[in-house]
Amino acid sequence: MDERVREHAEVLVDWSARVEAGDDVILVVGPEAHDLAVAVAEKLGERGANLLTMYGSGEITRAYLRTHDGDFDENPDFERALYERADVVLSIGGGRNTSAMADVPGETRQAYDGARTEIHEARFDTRWVSTVHPTRSLAQQANMAYEEYREFAYDAILRDWEALAEEMAQLKDLLDDGEEVRLVADGTDLRMRIDDRTGVNSAASVAYGSHNLPSGEVFTAPYATEGAVTFDVPMTLRGTPVRNVRLEFEDGEVVDYVAEQGESVIGAILDTDEGARRLGELGIGMNRGIDRYTDNILFDEKMGDTVHLAVGRAYDACLPEGETGNESAVHTDMILDVSEDARLEIDDKVVQRNGRFRWEDGF
Amino acid sequence: MDERVREHAEVLVDWSARVEAGDDVILVVGPEAHDLAVAVAEKLGERGANLLTMYGSGEITRAYLRTHDGDFDENPDFERALYERADVVLSIGGGRNTSAMADVPGETRQAYDGARTEIHEARFDTRWVSTVHPTRSLAQQANMAYEEYREFAYDAILRDWEALAEEMAQLKDLLDDGEEVRLVADGTDLRMRIDDRTGVNSAASVAYGSHNLPSGEVFTAPYATEGAVTFDVPMTLRGTPVRNVRLEFEDGEVVDYVAEQGESVIGAILDTDEGARRLGELGIGMNRGIDRYTDNILFDEKMGDTVHLAVGRAYDACLPEGETGNESAVHTDMILDVSEDARLEIDDKVVQRNGRFRWEDGF
Repeated sequence: MDERVREHAEVLVDWSARVEAGDDVILVVGPEAHDLAVAVAEKLGERGANLLTMYGSGEITRAYLRTHDGDFDENPDFERALYERADVVLSIGGGRNTSAMADVPGETRQAYDGARTEIHEARFDTRWVSTVHPTRSLAQQANMAYEEYREFAYDAILRDWEALAEEMAQLKDLLDDGEEVRLVADGTDLRMRIDDRTGVNSAASVAYGSHNLPSGEVFTAPYATEGAVTFDVPMTLRGTPVRNVRLEFEDGEVVDYVAEQGESVIGAILDTDEGARRLGELGIGMNRGIDRYTDNILFDEKMGDTVHLAVGRAYDACLPEGETGNESAVHTDMILDVSEDARLEIDDKVVQRNGRFRWEDGF
Repeated sequence: MDERVREHAEVLVDWSARVEAGDDVILVVGPEAHDLAVAVAEKLGERGANLLTMYGSGEITRAYLRTHDGDFDENPDFERALYERADVVLSIGGGRNTSAMADVPGETRQAYDGARTEIHEARFDTRWVSTVHPTRSLAQQANMAYEEYREFAYDAILRDWEALAEEMAQLKDLLDDGEEVRLVADGTDLRMRIDDRTGVNSAASVAYGSHNLPSGEVFTAPYATEGAVTFDVPMTLRGTPVRNVRLEFEDGEVVDYVAEQGESVIGAILDTDEGARRLGELGIGMNRGIDRYTDNILFDEKMGDTVHLAVGRAYDACLPEGETGNESAVHTDMILDVSEDARLEIDDKVVQRNGRFRWEDGF
């Protein structure tokens, strides 16, 4: 076994999920993620955790959903009981076809998800972590050769997370103390309020409230957005390529939008509900192990020298205790490159310029 | 997808497990059993059952067991709760290496199993069915080409189960009414008591108390065994090839044993505990779709024109209500060919001669 697979497993179990003896751990394995699952099982045995292994296959879900009449039982008791009692859920993505569920009607997926909200909540109450095993189908989605993609993925995953967490803490502190963020770049001049909001130091560990591996971003929940933003990092939304989306905000809401490609998808997302026209997230990507776009949000939004904004739902962790932030059925991230001709200001002081942070360049 | 995979799924879901709308179904998928799992998911969706998919991998279990210190938590709550609430458990075997767990120490396996008795019991309280997807590693174990093995497996699995169940019912009735069985063949002359014992018509359906697909045997729990038996069908026990085992019984217990090959494994099994020297099962294989030995007990013991006996534990279904039969930590089946120079008598009347039954040949 490639030593990097073992290192990945160790980061996932120890750094990300903080697994301890006696923990009840659900391991969800994608059809091509077997090797990483074996390495994770090795670590879980070593730690004295209890292991239950599930199979996460888009093809199986597709087969089930397409023949079902759509009238799904609400939160089946056996599955809810399982998640309610689990301490940790480790999900390892990695199949043979990232479009395996492409022909499942949207209404069917929504009906299925809608019938499982309590199961989802129980899962979110565990120390859950999502990662991927680098597979050929993910390499294909990234337009990369398989070995090339593996290099890329492990560069992103096998970081010095402790050092990165310390660096990211500096940005979190600035965001926590700040009142207003201004983002300036080509086609972008946007102001957002962040008073009373709390930044999350997403350092790929549940100890930091972070549930993705790789991670490497600091995010908060802005509001009262004013101005315009242009997202120049390409992406695929709902199966459709989207390019150069420009949003204009007034009084916190999108009042105009345009896109070079995929404009109708953007329109559909913004029309989902009232909250879909407001921002739910401002995130600053700080993982410089991720140096290119691979059409996979798990990696793309953490890319060093990028900033992303999400329309839709805000995360509770960023809000004052008991306060509900922006609510929406959607949370759609879009990304802009800030490596050139760009700056991020907090309360009129520049914090990042052309991708470099204040503590790096001393401005 | 091969239409036989879909037919296999339909037999499993409808005939074997009798799945109905609203059933909570656990589907356990081997690493190479993906295609059958997809076909099963299709059927489960159609029936309106609830689906949770688990991954059954010997390599993952091996990795976990080999690094664990052996002090396993008793019946972890999350897994017990899952099985206690499940209605149906469908296990589809099929990996890449039938020896995947060969280097896991026996004590570790026993400690693991011993810590999970309540989980096993909860599983046995469901409508559980075990089957296999024909894989290359199973073909290899059977000394067969892959396509050849697939033919073999589907011949065994895609029977007219209703017709076979009716035929087997005739033998069950004879066993239920009988007091003594005598088995005569080359190197074999054995008498067993079966008064008050109940035969199980194992017709590959939970409706008949049968939990294997394929099945096709009638079995009961004999006692007070006298005489000698020679098992001439080769098999692998605990990783060791075993050939021509001869057991001698007095007062229901093995008093002497010899084997052409694997004698020490037989000795170890018989020495497990007191019950390991007594019979737990007499089974008559009636699935003529299985026409050869493939070193897989799921198929071998159901082979037409064979009889098998197990030393060790007896099944409750064969015993009078509330009575405990032979108890043991082991249940080891061994098989003899009865297609030639052999007869099975119940109360001194011949029921099967040279593989043919009374109702076939009218003797």
